[in-house]
Amino acid sequence: MYRAIHERRDVRSQFLSDPLPDEVLARLLTAAHHAPSVGFMQPWRFVVIRDAKVRKRIHGLYLDANQDAAASYGEADGARAAYKKLKLAGILDAPVNLCIVCDSNTDRGRGLGRATMPETAAYSTVCAVQNLWLAARSEGVGVGWVSILHPERLRETLGIPESVLPVAYLCLGYVSHFEEQPELASKDWEQRADLAELIHFEAFGESDPERARALLGD
Amino acid sequence: MYRAIHERRDVRSQFLSDPLPDEVLARLLTAAHHAPSVGFMQPWRFVVIRDAKVRKRIHGLYLDANQDAAASYGEADGARAAYKKLKLAGILDAPVNLCIVCDSNTDRGRGLGRATMPETAAYSTVCAVQNLWLAARSEGVGVGWVSILHPERLRETLGIPESVLPVAYLCLGYVSHFEEQPELASKDWEQRADLAELIHFEAFGESDPERARALLGD
Repeated sequence: MYRAIHERRDVRSQFLSDPLPDEVLARLLTAAHHAPSVGFMQPWRFVVIRDAKVRKRIHGLYLDANQDAAASYGEADGARAAYKKLKLAGILDAPVNLCIVCDSNTDRGRGLGRATMPETAAYSTVCAVQNLWLAARSEGVGVGWVSILHPERLRETLGIPESVLPVAYLCLGYVSHFEEQPELASKDWEQRADLAELIHFEAFGESDPERARALLGD
Repeated sequence: MYRAIHERRDVRSQFLSDPLPDEVLARLLTAAHHAPSVGFMQPWRFVVIRDAKVRKRIHGLYLDANQDAAASYGEADGARAAYKKLKLAGILDAPVNLCIVCDSNTDRGRGLGRATMPETAAYSTVCAVQNLWLAARSEGVGVGWVSILHPERLRETLGIPESVLPVAYLCLGYVSHFEEQPELASKDWEQRADLAELIHFEAFGESDPERARALLGD
């Protein structure tokens, strides 16, 4: 369990074209379906995309959004060049794409727990994503989450109605290897934060890195 | 891995008062900190709550919100009585409460991936919740997610500023046992959905339970 958690990666560059067998995809979807959900509403729906034509359309959306994103970084400090060097999606390389959406148009769960925090329907769907991601890691299957997509254009392309929320667009497939470190770290985009600084005690703002380090045994 | 995924439960009723050792909590927080995050921004912050006075205040918020929730169910069909029979939170029973919040006020990650889908910051925080939940299950530690709380009152009580999003309020502790089935199923509130009906092919709306059942080997 801890190995899968610590060795899970957001895969963009190492996908192999080997097909993903149905029995493996079945185990991954079943793992996702066993996520927690508010009121047991199970709002997740899985759009399995293998058709290269559909993946090509999505890849086009990604290229557009990524061009806009690159343009938002300045040239003077090298940020734009650094951004452009990153490979951020494996939509065409991965044999299976999976769009996980949240459909709250359901009586399932009878509204329990959603009156005060309706966003927990979307959060339940994210729990399904993370279950799938960890199960995939333990199967040796890579997963990459592509968020550089305009949700409205994703809706149009996949026929997702206004009342259904696209939560995650994932790329799935076997990989040549899993990187030792997150790619954004090894490529010097960002480093892992010090956990002790993210822990607060009894109230927000009451961080106490020394006490946190004692808790963590650091 | 699959055992933890399938035997994980949302625990409300089976908490023991045994303390949760620091070394176990440290492993759980470290697992959460190894969740995926958009642009590697790591927006999660962990408020560890052990003080009984603080838990008592939160429990008061829960009681208020739960009374409102109960009142929203009709009496005629027995829904209100069924709702009132459910135990929905272990705030006072569990020795540790943990509020996981999302702080997007950070340059960490340099905005990567967040222009098109800014909600992925909150979703990253949910991935941290699910990592922690599965790690806890493998440690024999129960976790319950309490969403029957008004976020504004939770903010006031824990000093969470407007710019920080409360994502999950969790109860953690050792348990007498893990239930075989989700409590909402065994207490006949809701049943597990048929996964085949939640799978669509190539586009949303293109569900095909027969094809899905073949994929699932059912």
